[in-house]
Amino acid sequence: MQVKMAKNYGFCFGVKRAIEIAQKNKNSLTLGSLIHNPKEIKRLEQDYNVRVQEEVERIEPHKSVIIRTHGIPKHDLALLKEKRAHIIDATCPYVIKPQQIVEKMSAKGYQIVIFGDANHPEVKGVISYSSTPPLIVNSLEELQNQSLSKRVALVSQTTKQTPRLLEIASFLIARCAEVRIFNTICNATFDNQEAVRELSQEVDIMVIVGGKTSSNTKQLFNIAKEFCTDSYLVEDFNDLEVSWFKGKALCGISAGASTPGWIIEGVRQKILEL
Amino acid sequence: MQVKMAKNYGFCFGVKRAIEIAQKNKNSLTLGSLIHNPKEIKRLEQDYNVRVQEEVERIEPHKSVIIRTHGIPKHDLALLKEKRAHIIDATCPYVIKPQQIVEKMSAKGYQIVIFGDANHPEVKGVISYSSTPPLIVNSLEELQNQSLSKRVALVSQTTKQTPRLLEIASFLIARCAEVRIFNTICNATFDNQEAVRELSQEVDIMVIVGGKTSSNTKQLFNIAKEFCTDSYLVEDFNDLEVSWFKGKALCGISAGASTPGWIIEGVRQKILEL
Repeated sequence: MQVKMAKNYGFCFGVKRAIEIAQKNKNSLTLGSLIHNPKEIKRLEQDYNVRVQEEVERIEPHKSVIIRTHGIPKHDLALLKEKRAHIIDATCPYVIKPQQIVEKMSAKGYQIVIFGDANHPEVKGVISYSSTPPLIVNSLEELQNQSLSKRVALVSQTTKQTPRLLEIASFLIARCAEVRIFNTICNATFDNQEAVRELSQEVDIMVIVGGKTSSNTKQLFNIAKEFCTDSYLVEDFNDLEVSWFKGKALCGISAGASTPGWIIEGVRQKILEL
Repeated sequence: MQVKMAKNYGFCFGVKRAIEIAQKNKNSLTLGSLIHNPKEIKRLEQDYNVRVQEEVERIEPHKSVIIRTHGIPKHDLALLKEKRAHIIDATCPYVIKPQQIVEKMSAKGYQIVIFGDANHPEVKGVISYSSTPPLIVNSLEELQNQSLSKRVALVSQTTKQTPRLLEIASFLIARCAEVRIFNTICNATFDNQEAVRELSQEVDIMVIVGGKTSSNTKQLFNIAKEFCTDSYLVEDFNDLEVSWFKGKALCGISAGASTPGWIIEGVRQKILEL
């Protein structure tokens, strides 16, 4: 089987940075999974004794705690400080931005609209910085029956797609006197998405490598499916099924922003051998 | 010929207000035509001795000068003050808004983008309030090769169409970190446009009444043409041609925001008699 890699794929700047931080801080805890990839989490635990603790309440005093790329709610940060934790902040700088914007804009009296998934840890963090109750919408439809203020500020979860943000922005602009739009979508996501859009049009089969709970990996998979019916999402080479590749000549590969290089390489090798 | 009037048409709030102001201020000058309708201008001159002066330089000291709905450039206002003119401000409140926004946002360091016709008096006025050189674009295409700042503020000429504003906004949002969008499009324009869109789909012929230099009248005409091939733009009943109505049963009528009621009524009567 011939293989072609997407022009851009895999780890973004924020994730690379977070993993470097974790590797430099052996024996520390991360509050929630550092990134959305169980295999990499396991590697960090085995090689660096960096463990995951999901509940802030269960962290013992004076522990070294890494805040993951997604950031954490303000309240959890306060709890960590109460526990006199040694806080190591690996929040992605692109995630700190919407947190700061929401804090500033809600203080200035703008109604906050967050385009994102209310259950995503990044969004939970961003929400916590609003001094007024924000509207969280995951699609234009969810905005339809909401009551809107005259002055609205709009931010986006960093991993969202620009066209969807523009739909929401357009809806607001047509209805509000002032809409302040902060394009907090991360370029890395966009670049990975564009590369998948391009590659999936020229191959017979697409394989997306990434954690099945990673929102940006799922989006890559959705884009791939749009252009290539034979698209598959795998966590590593073990998920590959020989039957998928029957009668295919060229396989495209991409990977989510939280997929480590060594996992992608494993998948590539296995497909090459088919 | 049967006739059906659009749900909304003719004078907007700002124009009604300006004409009332002019009628209350006999013997005054207006700096430029008060509204884009030559017939109404003539009536004000004949009945109230309100005359048009196109050039601010030619206004004699201590004259009573009416500022028209479109507003005037800051520089012209300063000249009038120098001449100790008695200034009567009939600038539409909806036009004052983009002037104030542009003044404030340019002072705050936002790059100013004005969606409008650079030669339109309203836009010339708005431009003059920017402390930095603004970008004036009349379409998305005109924005394509411009260099953009990270922080942009967008305002619109009051008579523009919302879908076009949204195109421009979307282009900016995808490229800039922050876009502050002030929807300064006037509802009256929108309501008149929607009513034409509706009516032109149910009639055999559409007649739009308005000054041929009025931008909002031309837009109504363009919308009418989209849905009804037999659409005509007339300044008054004298422009009507009997041949247009041959084989037609129902005629729709609308009028620009600067078309006085008495002119619309003249057109309606003439068509009814056909």
